Amino acid sequence: MMNIDENEKSLPEKLSDDIVKYILNKQMKPGDRLPNESILAKEMGAGRSSVREAMKLLASRNIVNIKQGSGTYIANSTGVVEDPLGFTFINDKKKLTWDLLEIRFLIEPYIAQTAALNADDEDIKIIEELCNEVEYMLNKGIDHVEKDIEFHKAIAKSSKNLVVPRLIPIINSSIPLFVEITNNILKDETIETHREITQAIKEHNPVKANDAMYMHLVYNRRVIQSKNNNH
Amino acid sequence: MMNIDENEKSLPEKLSDDIVKYILNKQMKPGDRLPNESILAKEMGAGRSSVREAMKLLASRNIVNIKQGSGTYIANSTGVVEDPLGFTFINDKKKLTWDLLEIRFLIEPYIAQTAALNADDEDIKIIEELCNEVEYMLNKGIDHVEKDIEFHKAIAKSSKNLVVPRLIPIINSSIPLFVEITNNILKDETIETHREITQAIKEHNPVKANDAMYMHLVYNRRVIQSKNNNH
Repeated sequence: MMNIDENEKSLPEKLSDDIVKYILNKQMKPGDRLPNESILAKEMGAGRSSVREAMKLLASRNIVNIKQGSGTYIANSTGVVEDPLGFTFINDKKKLTWDLLEIRFLIEPYIAQTAALNADDEDIKIIEELCNEVEYMLNKGIDHVEKDIEFHKAIAKSSKNLVVPRLIPIINSSIPLFVEITNNILKDETIETHREITQAIKEHNPVKANDAMYMHLVYNRRVIQSKNNNH
Repeated sequence: MMNIDENEKSLPEKLSDDIVKYILNKQMKPGDRLPNESILAKEMGAGRSSVREAMKLLASRNIVNIKQGSGTYIANSTGVVEDPLGFTFINDKKKLTWDLLEIRFLIEPYIAQTAALNADDEDIKIIEELCNEVEYMLNKGIDHVEKDIEFHKAIAKSSKNLVVPRLIPIINSSIPLFVEITNNILKDETIETHREITQAIKEHNPVKANDAMYMHLVYNRRVIQSKNNNH
């Protein structure tokens, strides 16, 4: 029997906590390379096999990436796991889609607004490129989900709020659900509102950005509502 | 060298994905007990040691709890890890506190409002009890952080939105930061606004609940702002 528990952590569990402290103390950034197993084992006063175990736990929490033959590196968006809110384990995907949309209404117009205030020239360039790519894919009927997520990510990043880009996994996990439900129906509205959002950010017009994002969500909600009798 | 990687997952990694599918197919709920190692090893066509490895990874993602001498159980708020958005790895805690407060303004008044609409008698009973306990602790000068978090959790749960209770880790991680900064200064305002929020939910008055929560956040923001020259 194993003994991972609130009170009773396994040695690799405790060691992974120590390695987190080590990463913080050294102020290591994403992409930084961790010392190799034997050096780290010395640093931590632990065995190499325990360090290996601990690293696997840290990898499963997206704190490090273990690259075969290359080494162990601090992960991008360190500590942000895939599906951080465990939506995988919500069975009622219909209610989940609706409830996620509620949250998108709360957060995304604000994100667009602050992006319009804080986006720099580089941010704007990236947002415009992604807007054009999504539009191209929509017109060609190519699957645009990934690019659509990148578009929303770029807007969140340009808001310069530290929390917002970490909320993006929530938005990410919702977009495929929405596209599934709203696909083809909202092609023109998506192109139009994506353009408006991009233009508003480019003009540093927070009200216009807020409203354009709000419209974007309203179009989605109307389609979902029309297919969703319990709302 | 280990080989956990996007493309190249280790056997325990792959196995943990299979166990997640198993949990979903069986529609297992928090508290449900998983079959023991040897049975699961058979089910998965894998070795017991691999199953043990996989379980450690699932435990580190709060998908299962491994209880020594008892067995392995589906975790509460399955798949929601501690610090899911990796705030541990944000160095600028001052900006983090401010940016978190921005997000709390977006989400928490809505949570209070929907709680007022959807709370049942049992929810209200729990919220009232927690409100009284926090008030007692504040008056006695006892550390109330944990209870304060429970109070906000109970409100989120009673909103009946599937996403909101999973956003609570975000709010949790902010409350200790706020208390640290605002402690003692906001004793009376906290008691007053917590009471208002509780009363509004009890009366099923969404506007009153929204406004009371908004006030609660304004008191916090004023204190933080007064101590925070860059805003």
